[in-house]
Amino acid sequence: MRGHYNLIAGQSIERLAALSDGVFAVAMTLLVLDLRTPAAAAVHGERDLMHALLPLAPRLLVYLMSFLTLGIFWIGQQTQLNNFERADRDLSWIHLAFLFLVSLMPFSTALMAEFFHYRTALVLYWLNILLLGVVLFASWRLALRHGLVTETMRAGTGAIERRIIVAQLLYAFGAVLCIFNTSWSLGFIILLQLNYALAPAFSRRWIP
Amino acid sequence: MRGHYNLIAGQSIERLAALSDGVFAVAMTLLVLDLRTPAAAAVHGERDLMHALLPLAPRLLVYLMSFLTLGIFWIGQQTQLNNFERADRDLSWIHLAFLFLVSLMPFSTALMAEFFHYRTALVLYWLNILLLGVVLFASWRLALRHGLVTETMRAGTGAIERRIIVAQLLYAFGAVLCIFNTSWSLGFIILLQLNYALAPAFSRRWIP
Amino acid sequence: MRGHYNLIAGQSIERLAALSDGVFAVAMTLLVLDLRTPAAAAVHGERDLMHALLPLAPRLLVYLMSFLTLGIFWIGQQTQLNNFERADRDLSWIHLAFLFLVSLMPFSTALMAEFFHYRTALVLYWLNILLLGVVLFASWRLALRHGLVTETMRAGTGAIERRIIVAQLLYAFGAVLCIFNTSWSLGFIILLQLNYALAPAFSRRWIP
Amino acid sequence: MRGHYNLIAGQSIERLAALSDGVFAVAMTLLVLDLRTPAAAAVHGERDLMHALLPLAPRLLVYLMSFLTLGIFWIGQQTQLNNFERADRDLSWIHLAFLFLVSLMPFSTALMAEFFHYRTALVLYWLNILLLGVVLFASWRLALRHGLVTETMRAGTGAIERRIIVAQLLYAFGAVLCIFNTSWSLGFIILLQLNYALAPAFSRRWIP
Repeated sequence: MRGHYNLIAGQSIERLAALSDGVFAVAMTLLVLDLRTPAAAAVHGERDLMHALLPLAPRLLVYLMSFLTLGIFWIGQQTQLNNFERADRDLSWIHLAFLFLVSLMPFSTALMAEFFHYRTALVLYWLNILLLGVVLFASWRLALRHGLVTETMRAGTGAIERRIIVAQLLYAFGAVLCIFNTSWSLGFIILLQLNYALAPAFSRRWIP
Repeated sequence: MRGHYNLIAGQSIERLAALSDGVFAVAMTLLVLDLRTPAAAAVHGERDLMHALLPLAPRLLVYLMSFLTLGIFWIGQQTQLNNFERADRDLSWIHLAFLFLVSLMPFSTALMAEFFHYRTALVLYWLNILLLGVVLFASWRLALRHGLVTETMRAGTGAIERRIIVAQLLYAFGAVLCIFNTSWSLGFIILLQLNYALAPAFSRRWIP
Repeated sequence: MRGHYNLIAGQSIERLAALSDGVFAVAMTLLVLDLRTPAAAAVHGERDLMHALLPLAPRLLVYLMSFLTLGIFWIGQQTQLNNFERADRDLSWIHLAFLFLVSLMPFSTALMAEFFHYRTALVLYWLNILLLGVVLFASWRLALRHGLVTETMRAGTGAIERRIIVAQLLYAFGAVLCIFNTSWSLGFIILLQLNYALAPAFSRRWIP
Repeated sequence: MRGHYNLIAGQSIERLAALSDGVFAVAMTLLVLDLRTPAAAAVHGERDLMHALLPLAPRLLVYLMSFLTLGIFWIGQQTQLNNFERADRDLSWIHLAFLFLVSLMPFSTALMAEFFHYRTALVLYWLNILLLGVVLFASWRLALRHGLVTETMRAGTGAIERRIIVAQLLYAFGAVLCIFNTSWSLGFIILLQLNYALAPAFSRRWIP
């Protein structure tokens, strides 16, 4: 009886993709919501306004980084979902866990934007990225085990798994840098994100 | 004339599913929005930041629980929608009522996170879950009566109805526990959610 | 040249429907966002909490009413979109205007919830509903004129137009009641909404 | 190996469109979120309420303008996406950059609404529009180069590119007007938006 519900529940890849797109869309837009306009009372001229906007620049950089992170994981997830023949209940729950981690990104980002000289903020931010990678890896393994992956995609298993692992090792290295200096950490992670985002546009990738 | 509008209105399962995915996505992401970063003024070192973040841990647990709740009901709803041949106006309105209850979850959750030692907060939270179950049950019954359910799905009626009823009885039991202690109540409900979310991943379920 | 762009732009009903579902989903969920949890500092026992929650009840009613409004117009819009063969640029812009009005609903609702004894709030709320109806009517007329409506649907023109006009006349009557008393106005509009939402479930409608 | 991932990643136009619709929907609804209801404490009669609402009128105008902007770019983007045969990783990243700029619109708009007499606010707002146009242009060029555009659409290349360039030149002219007066700037941009939104409805366009 119980088995019956599990067999029919959570099978639609389309709905899983739609929910994911929704959560990503809201999370991506909320990131920027923390950019507050300066208080009107403190602004008496163009110079005041420019001075009030300047401190927003580093924040904007952190938001851009988080947008890149979300973009990278959105592409990673959709690449998997597009190549699954169907979902099942277990896969749905793994992706719900993934979406929970996505929904935490605006918080991790706001923490980072507010406290980017603090190791605690950086480690929590990295933990968020790490868990996103772990869950995406788990999704892939489970889909393989449950026979949900299309034939053509199964051939690329090595490449896909290596990619997630290499990326996560590089993120981990970036996080470790914060022992010395949080700015190095942050800088390294941003370069890493830019590599993943921009590299294909220049037809080659600096880091494998 | 009147009949005519009712015959053509609200027939699209796809749009109902799309609206639902949107409401779930927004509600799921808003849950976490109440996690506020600590005030920068009060933080002067790594220790301060860690101390300021610690009280967020129980809140995070409540948000996780609500995310699980929404996940459970999202899967429940999509299982129904995927197996309906079409919608009609009545079914659309039942699902709009369902979505109204979904949109209340961020409020119930925030209330619970703020006042989790209070029976009032717990009972309201449980009421929200109860109503979600009741409306989902009503959707199923109406779809059966209006002949909207696919052949294969109709065979599983017993399993589906039993599942909703058993789950709701267990939630009710959890809510009653708050007469003695709200922590027991909360703990029991969280275990219940985890059972529904995790159990399939381990290929068996502790509670039917 | 110019004609060329207009011929190919904005033709996708699917994307128009997806954007609409998104805007409705966000607006519906944001409605309830204004329900704030009571301040923890002022609550020292179960009674305090209950007393602090009580004033939220009329607000909840206003939100429910707005949710019903959005539900009614969502069904109205999707009934049209489902029966259009394709969109064109003009139709897209009419529906973007419709979505602008939808996005104003959380504001009109918050205003109403805060000032429901004031005629100004009620008239603005009604204006929002009126404009939603006007734009939906315009969408229908334009689609007829541009030959975008499916054959079967065109037969129902009378019923569809009469329905929008009757509903709007009733809303207008409700708004006029506020000359005497805003509570009558509000009550009448809520009954009207419930009629449109619940009536089909009881297989008959009290008002045509 | 690396090439393999790039070949299979980010190919789904449908998911790109869904994510875009989500981001646009959230951004469009959040625009209006900054319209705050007047403080209840300061309102003692109908007149007070009307007086408190009046200053919201210019803000509403700015929001309307931003809604028009988002509408114009939403139609522009969907026209491209509807006419691409498939996506690839590079195209996905270009559209993610486009969505980042979309998610900045609520901020640019709030800044403009708060400081519409300041050139700084106007220039930043225009910069946002300019970048949206640049990225959309880049998307088109890349899609042409990568052979992602459908046959019929490729014929319209001239019209599409001319359109983006003419629009951007007009926006730039509008922005330059702020050297003399920010109100002229704002007025000119609003008229421009209205032209793009309303003109097709009247079957002709005042500006090519």
